[in-house]
Formats: sequence, structure tokens, C-alpha cells
Amino acid sequence: MATHSLATFITTLAPTHFPPSTVQAARRTLYNYLGCALGGSSHPAVAKAYDALEPLFGERRCTLFGRTGARSEALHADAQHAALLNGIASHVHDYDDTHLATIIHPAGPVCSAVLAATQHLASAPTPTRVTGAELLTALVAGIETSCALGLAVWPSHYDAGWHITSTTGSVGAAAGVARLLGLSEKQTTHALGLAATQVTGLRCMFGSDAKALHPGRAAQAGLLAALLAQRGYTAAEDSIEAKRGWANVVVGGGEAKLDEWVGRLGREWQVERNAFKPFPCGIVCHPLIDACVRLRGRLMEEGRGVGAEELVELGVRARVHPLVLELTAKRRPVDGLQAKFSVYHGAAVALLYGRATPAEYGDRVVRDGDVVRVRDSIEVVADDEVAADATVVSYTCPIEGVTRTLEVEHAVGSLARPMTDDELTDKFVGQVELVLGRLEAARASAGAWGVGEVEDVAEVLRRL
Amino acid sequence: MATHSLATFITTLAPTHFPPSTVQAARRTLYNYLGCALGGSSHPAVAKAYDALEPLFGERRCTLFGRTGARSEALHADAQHAALLNGIASHVHDYDDTHLATIIHPAGPVCSAVLAATQHLASAPTPTRVTGAELLTALVAGIETSCALGLAVWPSHYDAGWHITSTTGSVGAAAGVARLLGLSEKQTTHALGLAATQVTGLRCMFGSDAKALHPGRAAQAGLLAALLAQRGYTAAEDSIEAKRGWANVVVGGGEAKLDEWVGRLGREWQVERNAFKPFPCGIVCHPLIDACVRLRGRLMEEGRGVGAEELVELGVRARVHPLVLELTAKRRPVDGLQAKFSVYHGAAVALLYGRATPAEYGDRVVRDGDVVRVRDSIEVVADDEVAADATVVSYTCPIEGVTRTLEVEHAVGSLARPMTDDELTDKFVGQVELVLGRLEAARASAGAWGVGEVEDVAEVLRRL
Repeated sequence: MATHSLATFITTLAPTHFPPSTVQAARRTLYNYLGCALGGSSHPAVAKAYDALEPLFGERRCTLFGRTGARSEALHADAQHAALLNGIASHVHDYDDTHLATIIHPAGPVCSAVLAATQHLASAPTPTRVTGAELLTALVAGIETSCALGLAVWPSHYDAGWHITSTTGSVGAAAGVARLLGLSEKQTTHALGLAATQVTGLRCMFGSDAKALHPGRAAQAGLLAALLAQRGYTAAEDSIEAKRGWANVVVGGGEAKLDEWVGRLGREWQVERNAFKPFPCGIVCHPLIDACVRLRGRLMEEGRGVGAEELVELGVRARVHPLVLELTAKRRPVDGLQAKFSVYHGAAVALLYGRATPAEYGDRVVRDGDVVRVRDSIEVVADDEVAADATVVSYTCPIEGVTRTLEVEHAVGSLARPMTDDELTDKFVGQVELVLGRLEAARASAGAWGVGEVEDVAEVLRRL
Repeated sequence: MATHSLATFITTLAPTHFPPSTVQAARRTLYNYLGCALGGSSHPAVAKAYDALEPLFGERRCTLFGRTGARSEALHADAQHAALLNGIASHVHDYDDTHLATIIHPAGPVCSAVLAATQHLASAPTPTRVTGAELLTALVAGIETSCALGLAVWPSHYDAGWHITSTTGSVGAAAGVARLLGLSEKQTTHALGLAATQVTGLRCMFGSDAKALHPGRAAQAGLLAALLAQRGYTAAEDSIEAKRGWANVVVGGGEAKLDEWVGRLGREWQVERNAFKPFPCGIVCHPLIDACVRLRGRLMEEGRGVGAEELVELGVRARVHPLVLELTAKRRPVDGLQAKFSVYHGAAVALLYGRATPAEYGDRVVRDGDVVRVRDSIEVVADDEVAADATVVSYTCPIEGVTRTLEVEHAVGSLARPMTDDELTDKFVGQVELVLGRLEAARASAGAWGVGEVEDVAEVLRRL
């Protein structure tokens, strides 16, 4: 029943079925994905995977976003390897999107697969052009599928130890590619099954390169599933709801709520509830980082100094939700990876630089003397009364000797205070300029914002 | 602890560590695998997968066993696609090996990955030659790993709905390739983790093409894991035993017995407990088929006729273990797939032809008039007193008018009555001749028996 309903939803989905707000949300999700994939492309994990797999590449029809060869030429791969490597890159900085109700990062699997399929089709012996509208429709099909499955098995599935991004992502990726290829309902049913039977992602991998493999492999699994189904390769037709099917096997002790969530498909749009990380670190740190960026703005407006000395003198104290110190209480991080688990580091760079982008999580910044001094000066206290997306910061103005506070009710990036398009652009450029340089980053940003409207998506991706 | 012990076992395994009986068992497992991969290669599911994926193939270094192109030339693929397609072929007739204690079919994932890796290395810019002894050592490493993991989570894992062949197979394949590549203990640890996090195989897929995808995809996942780990791509170092690691997440309600089974590695050899299916149908049918083959032999020895008429006149009745009729009571199968679930069909062709090979499960045979008549004449009764690998057949000699019985205590292919090398050869030739013709099948059989002893495995595989 659920499998059939999903297949019907996917095969009949058309741009006229969803409101402009959904289009806008899909466009923002795609834009944020491209920034993360470009920004993550220079990470050592991506380089290792590239080196390991390059000898296996097939016809190089698809762009490896941001990766360049010895003579600065853009690097390409076959569709399956592009889906894998772009998927790894998009997640490797933990800086991607988040469907907050399930903590799925839906774009990694879905966009990686659908974009690779788009370029694969464009360079086929008989090329097929994909328009921006068709692309966004396929992405919506994939993201809604991933999120519906995730909502149906949340939270017991995640609690059991599954990385929900990739376990739902392979099916979402298959749905997106199936929509893009225009598969029949029967083929789509088989594609869903062939993807569902590939369950990738154990949570014990968090903290290793394997975590970022998950969305990449999910993208590849979904793409494989759709390509096989297109040629008539079959799967069970009740793969999602069968007694020994996806939901029952992976739900992890709870009861899957498939009918409820699959039933809502097409009536509400989860992509509109997809949020974007403003800072490349655990989401629990975000309210305090947001507060410190604002505090720096206030200080500058008031003509106060914002050097390390002056910031230390403020004696910044923050009250935060208890989870913040449970997860990110690293007092003295020694490198960028540790700094992601230090709310102190996030606060310090926000005060010193007014931002916390991947650049501020570089090893050199983490060991910088000014950063260390400011970081050491900040006090953070857990407070049950503070909401998860809020914080209260207090500080003492040294001249007047009075204590003042700055309160963040809803951190930037939360559903109540989503990132604006301008903030998303800053995020994009901030991470991409580290890979491509500032000029190219701005050019890529403009291109990425436009993908949803173009007549030929592959043409834009080639130039990205 | 388990992950570490596995990695130590794998990296230090040498041919001197195991007795001749283990070498012999590995040799038989490899031989049986090659027969199944060749025999399965002409199945429509393999053709569909080939057609879907051929546009993605990389450098074609590896043999697709048994597949030939339009001009009868042998077809090749890159290592990942060869692992996938050979893995599908090896399982697609349900005719492969069975580790009876776990019903894992260990060869499909492990051999498909290790053989592809062998050819990949042999055709690398700096070629590496793999000897037969090195190959068998890698296969033992992989098969022991798969079976140890399977035993640790059996039976709750299988009961929960996982296809245990592929869920353990990806880790076994990674172990085999890691051993073949000579990875360090650290790299092997990461390879195990990268494979463990790819959990493929839901049991709801039984009855569709997706079932055979499982061992193929497991082979590919394990190969990918080892290649990534070789380049330093990391995973959790306790991926098997971690709280949110493989065993705890997939055990399915039971308690994983990791320490027990990993602790036995190197002291006992599961590959010696790997059995081979004498007939391409559910194992519960095998005792009656075996009995009917023997009955035909007895009748011929006694100079009696064995035509359809005469066989019908015997009024064959059999007492069987109750599971036989629960699983394979299909009275009137209409095609080869249904015939696999008909113990009547297996008995009928055994009586008429003295064998039950894939040829006797062809659609035309299933609909043949003589076969139908004999099939309809056979009575089968469930009997709690009959063991799973036994049966008692009775029949009436029409001339004398007396009733006689024939009892099978342990069916051929059981651990108590393993297939002999000659029987394995008959099985090999019987399925391979349908693909390559009788002469080539015999030649391939000789080559396949010799792989374990040669100086250059890739050279033999090329000629297979």
C-alpha cells in the first residue's frame, strides 16, 4: 500500500501540484546543496575517495563539483561515481541542510543522484535535456519520499543506531531519479524496492570519514536502483510495508507510521521544513554563535573596540540549553575537527570575526593566540529554562561598569528564523571561496541560484 | 574488540594456518561458485542488469563469467561492475553453496569481490600477480568472516527480515579483498567498518530479481570498502561491536554472540561446513529428489522400464519432513520459477531423467506431457518422524504386485553426505553446458578445478 502510494505520488508529480513556496524551498535546498558540495570538495576525505576510485571511473559525463586536476581543469566521473563523490563532499563539513523533524539531511542523497542522472542523460548517445523545472520536480519527489519515510520511523529508527539521512536517502534518491527518467509506476515501484533493500548508515561511524560516505552511497544506491528498474529489473512490490520490508525491519522496536506519513504526500511539503545550517558545527551551538555575531555588531555600532583584549574584558557569560554542554563542551580544541565540538570556539570566532564559516574552523584559526584568549574567557552555563534554539548572553561594559544582556529567542537557521536568501548567499560564498577563490565563488553562486529556471540544467552544471 | 580481532585474523592469515581439509573445502567452494556464476550468466536478470549498467562501465579489466557479446567475444567490466554482475549470476538460480548453520551463501559476495580484485590488480598499470594459494587464503579470510558474523547474530537477525547472505557478505567481501591487497591491520579495520555500514538485503525481496542483487551488491560494497580503506579513508574502529555498530543494530532483538564466534576464528573453519546444492531448488526438496534419482537407478539395474507410463504405474508415495509441503507443495507448476517450489516436479524429473539440473527446470520441461503425467502421479505426505534431510519412498512393482521402499537417511549435499568431487563436476557441467555448450563446459570445469594451484589466477580467469 505505502509502496504503491509512493510510486503513484512520484510518477504523477508535476510542478503544478505544488505552491510557489515549495518551488522556492526546493530552489534554496538545491542552492545550499551546491554550496556544500563545492565547499566540501577539497576535504581530504573526498581526495582519498577520488584517488581510490578514479581507476574505476566509466565515461566521464558528470561534474565532480569543485574538484580540479593538475592543470586546474574541472574533473568529471561517470554518474555513479559523481553521485558518490559529490554526496560525500556535500556532507563532509556537517554544514548541509536539516529537515529538523527527523534530522535528515535530504539534499545530499537526492541532489547528488538527480544531478548526476541529469548530466548522464545530457551526454548520452541520444541526449536528453532536463529543464530547471523538471529538475526541481524530481528533487521534490525525492525529498518528500525521504522525509515521509523518515517521519514514519522516527525516532525509534534513529535511536536504534541508523543514520537516517542515508537509510531514507537511498529511497529518496531512487524516487528523484525515477521521476527524472519518467519511469512508469511499475518501474518506480521496483526502483523504490531496489533502493530500500540497500540500507546504508550506522551511527557508530559518526566522527570518521565513513559518516560522509553514507549520503554518497545512498545517492549511488538510489541511482543504481532507478537505472536497473528502468531495464525491467524487479523487486518486491510491497518493499516498504511488507512484513520483512524496509519499515518493519529498520524501525528499530517502534511501530512504523507509514500510512499516516505517506498519506500526507502531496498535501503538505516537507521540503518547506528543510532548514539550513548557518554554521559548520553541531546545531546546538548555533544560538550562542548567533548571539555572539549580533553582540559584535552591537559593539561596533556603539563604537566599541572588538579586538581580543577588549572582548576578553567583556567577561562574556551565556546561559544555554543543557544539551549544548552535553555535546559541545570541548574547552580547548586543538584542531578544526575538535573545534566543531566546542561551543566556546564558535562563540569566540563569532565575537572576533563576526562569522563562523569553515575558514574559522581551520586548524590555524583554532590555534591562533587571539582566538585562544577569547575562547578561554567565555563562560557557558546550562539552564533548563533556555529553549534549544535560544540563549541569553550577558557581558560587562568595562567603561561604564554595567552588565548588559543580549537575548536570542530563535537562532538563525531555525524554522522560526530561517536563513534569508542573502544569508544563504553569504554561506555559499564563504565556503566556496576557500576552494575556488572569491571571484569564482560569486560567479558560481549566481549560477547556482539560477539552476531552477534554466532550459538546460546540464549546461549550467558544466560551467559551475 | 571483535573488529580488532577480525582485523588481526584477516591480516595474519597464511596458508600454513589451516589444514589441507580447509584448502580442499575452499577449492570446492570456489569451483562450485564458478559453475554457478557461469551457469547463471544467461539468466534474464543478469542481462537486464548488464544492459542498465554497461554505459557506466570503467576500464574493462575483469571477466563477466559466461557472458558473450554479439560476435561471441567474452565480455568484461571494471572490477566493481564485474563483482556486481558475477555476484548476481552466482545466486540467480538459487543453486549456490550453503553454510547450513546460518543458511549463508558465502561464496557469492566473497568470490565475486576477490576474483574481480584479482583481475583488477593483474591489469593495473603496475600489474600484480595473484597465485592460487593467495587467492584461496583471501577466500578463506572472507568466508570465515562472513560466517562468524552470521553465527553471532543467528537466528534473530534472519528472523527479523535480513537476507543474511548479503548482510554478512559485504563484510566478508571486504575481508577477502583486504587480505588479497595486503592491507595493514588499521586499513583492514577501516575496510570492515566501511563494509559493515552498508547493510544490504531485505527478505521481502525473495521471489524477485532483487534477491540476486543482494550478493552482487555485497560483493561490490566489500570491494569498495577495501579500496577506500587502502587510500586511508576511515571508519569507526569498533564498527562491529559498537553500541550503534553492526551487530547491535542488525541483530534484530536477540543478543549478538560476537566474542564466542569471533573467538573461534582460526581454530575451526566454517568453510569446511559449507555445503553445495545438488539441485537448483529449495533445500527441503533435496531428499526426495535424491531418493527418486536412486530409485531410477535401482529400476534400471533391475531391467525395469523407466518411461513415463511405467513410472506412473509404480504409484510412488513419499513420506517427508513437514517443512517440505509447507514450502514446496506446488502441485501444478506452470513455469520454471514455480517448479522450484514444487517437490512433485523435482521428484518427477529425477525419476524420468535421473537428474534435476537447471535444464530440468526449463519452462518447456515443466510443461512436457510426460513430466506432467509422472508429476501428477506422485503422492507426498508430511511425517513428523522424518528428519529434514531424509525421506522414505514406497512404490509398487506392477509385475510382482509387491510394495517396496527406498530410504534416504541423509540426502546428497547434506553435511553427513557431502557431494563428491565427481558430483560437483556433474553439477558444474550440467549448468555450464546450457550456456557454453558441452565441450566448453568440460574445458571450463578443468580450468576451474585448477585455479587454486596456479601461479597466476588472472591468466586462468581470462581463459575461463
